[in-house]
Amino acid sequence: MTSSNHILTLENLNPNIIAMEYAVRGPLVIRAMAIEKELNKGIKKSFNNVIKANIGDAHAMGQKPISFIRQVLACVSDPSLINSVNYPSDVKQRAELLLSYCGGHSIGAYSHSNGIEIIRKHIAEYITHRDNGIPSDPQHILLSAGASESIRNILKLFIDKDGRNRKKGVMIPIPQYPLYSASIVEFGLGLVGYYLDESNNWALNIDELEHAYKESLNQFNTRVLCVINPGNPTGQVLSKDNVEEIIKFAYKYKLFLLADEVYQDNIYEENRKFHSFKSVMKSMGEPYSQMELCSFHSCSKGYMGECGLRGGYVEVINVEQEVFNHLQKMTSAKLCSTILGQCAMDCVVKPPQPGEPSYEQWLQEKTAVLNSLQERARTIYNAYNSMDGIECNPVHGAMYAFPRIKMPQKAIDKAKVK
Amino acid sequence: MTSSNHILTLENLNPNIIAMEYAVRGPLVIRAMAIEKELNKGIKKSFNNVIKANIGDAHAMGQKPISFIRQVLACVSDPSLINSVNYPSDVKQRAELLLSYCGGHSIGAYSHSNGIEIIRKHIAEYITHRDNGIPSDPQHILLSAGASESIRNILKLFIDKDGRNRKKGVMIPIPQYPLYSASIVEFGLGLVGYYLDESNNWALNIDELEHAYKESLNQFNTRVLCVINPGNPTGQVLSKDNVEEIIKFAYKYKLFLLADEVYQDNIYEENRKFHSFKSVMKSMGEPYSQMELCSFHSCSKGYMGECGLRGGYVEVINVEQEVFNHLQKMTSAKLCSTILGQCAMDCVVKPPQPGEPSYEQWLQEKTAVLNSLQERARTIYNAYNSMDGIECNPVHGAMYAFPRIKMPQKAIDKAKVK
Repeated sequence: MTSSNHILTLENLNPNIIAMEYAVRGPLVIRAMAIEKELNKGIKKSFNNVIKANIGDAHAMGQKPISFIRQVLACVSDPSLINSVNYPSDVKQRAELLLSYCGGHSIGAYSHSNGIEIIRKHIAEYITHRDNGIPSDPQHILLSAGASESIRNILKLFIDKDGRNRKKGVMIPIPQYPLYSASIVEFGLGLVGYYLDESNNWALNIDELEHAYKESLNQFNTRVLCVINPGNPTGQVLSKDNVEEIIKFAYKYKLFLLADEVYQDNIYEENRKFHSFKSVMKSMGEPYSQMELCSFHSCSKGYMGECGLRGGYVEVINVEQEVFNHLQKMTSAKLCSTILGQCAMDCVVKPPQPGEPSYEQWLQEKTAVLNSLQERARTIYNAYNSMDGIECNPVHGAMYAFPRIKMPQKAIDKAKVK
Repeated sequence: MTSSNHILTLENLNPNIIAMEYAVRGPLVIRAMAIEKELNKGIKKSFNNVIKANIGDAHAMGQKPISFIRQVLACVSDPSLINSVNYPSDVKQRAELLLSYCGGHSIGAYSHSNGIEIIRKHIAEYITHRDNGIPSDPQHILLSAGASESIRNILKLFIDKDGRNRKKGVMIPIPQYPLYSASIVEFGLGLVGYYLDESNNWALNIDELEHAYKESLNQFNTRVLCVINPGNPTGQVLSKDNVEEIIKFAYKYKLFLLADEVYQDNIYEENRKFHSFKSVMKSMGEPYSQMELCSFHSCSKGYMGECGLRGGYVEVINVEQEVFNHLQKMTSAKLCSTILGQCAMDCVVKPPQPGEPSYEQWLQEKTAVLNSLQERARTIYNAYNSMDGIECNPVHGAMYAFPRIKMPQKAIDKAKVK
């Protein structure tokens, strides 16, 4: 059968899928994997191994899992371990609690599409505590396969054109995490980039937001503002004042806020603090406190780095009830996210407490990971800035450094000639 | 903030999400859950508990998990168990093998977006063995969060309109599993229903397929034929002759075949056998053997019933390489499916073999589940057919019975008057 005999061809394939790009797993990674295979086959090169830094994949880089999480997962997977293995009592109690909320006491049963009830309750308690008592409603928390799935679910809500046949525009930072650009193109939404302010530690500059927003209106009905804080791939942690400014900007132009806060535990500077969009928005009072906001979190980053378990959630705040009902209906067609990923999320939002048997080990493991990440953040900052022609902002948070490479004038001149 | 102040409203919400329906988790289930909560609160009713039969959720209905699967999951979750717990040696070896293919030897690392290499290899071996030696290529197998995610990924490829502004039409059975209708509407594809032949044990009647196809062309550019075999929710197992006829029909009209074969292990009649679309198509020789086909499988059904683990895959057969590359790119934006779901899938496609330490227990557990499902299939068939005004086909496979209710003439007359 020749190409022309195929039913599905490049000529009639979903054009958005053709158009979408996904750099994180693009040509660079494919080439890296090919090189790795060559090395494994014994082909000699001037180096012995490939370090893939294309994605925040902590365990692949040697980070060790948190024992409490893994012991709970082992117990819910094989409940006979609850009585037979020498695990701490809080591990066993957690496993029993989680199983008591599973259909047939089994992680093999589907959960409610929103996620297991007790886990949503624990997430709401975690958020309330994080935000100094600002309440969180378990009914407005939806668990998902990593934060990625939640982000995509929320973006899908905006697929629609206005009376002038304009797509809805979604504002995302440049540099960005390519999940956003890939999903926006796949869904046929309008990609509106705004530049982060490199000279101001990658803060969001309101003039730049205004500029990007206004220019986008020629093409799009821009309705969504995505902010990644702490920044991926830029490593900044937004100040409370900056978050306030952003919220006022979103209010002024009626933009729906998406806060990608999956690095909320990854802060490496003493004088920087994570301020959730929800806590700042709520503390600003009306009308800001009533704004629509979705905040995303994950068990893939932080100190646990459990990417492969695919645990994550979105908190949906101030969204019209009927819209929320449709969101729930849509996600329910995928039945539910992985129960083991949900259980991991539970351990993240409700870790062992002081006095509980697992607490000391948990704290030690968590601290070791965060100290190591902090040390690496400083090392990479110093290394980059010690190199000729390379400058880099300090890495205040997240897991990335984004250096500036100054091209020598001679190279620029030569490129121009060519 | 009143409704009109919301940014996202029913007026500008993605209209496909508004239009989609998902009966499995629709009003009936919501009411059932409300009744269940009332019972739990002690409110008296004429019954004591609610049995939710809206979805094939085996463990929730009391089915026990297969020990081999759960022991492997426990070991990969907490590798210290490999040396400390009294598990059979094949469990420990499997866990070690799987971990050796994980980044950093951890299930917390992302895998290749297609899935872990060794698991794709095991799946290909399973398919080859199932299909009496017809080869399967691990490069064309993509793991996913249950079969649902794979089905949705493949359907997305067809989102596009033709020169006459017609959506691509997707033919699905009536009665169907509502994932299909929900996803087709969400993706803005054309829903083309064909009626299964109730009087012939829910077989696919080619005249009916012809009729549905031809009628659909007024509205859609129909390019896809979905077949669910064994049938959900109708419980039939298609004969080899019927599968051949369907393949010839698809060839005649250039339809891309989707074979939902997640119940391939659930056959309850001695004289019925599962014939995969791939094996029949390949055995028919050219031109049929070159047709495009996607076949789906899952760890949610069969004898294991591990719905909550979200393991599944698609085998993509004879699809144009460039189209396949775009499919891989698209799925890579979601990074990877749950590693523990992938590991469960590995245990399903490569169970313990005779002579291995876990074999006897595995066989006993598997046989017990399948015998119980077979017994229930017969019981429900007999029960329905013993009731006045209800008829039901025998349940040859899958997990469902779909009865016909004959309305009494008096009721029909009264309804007409009203």
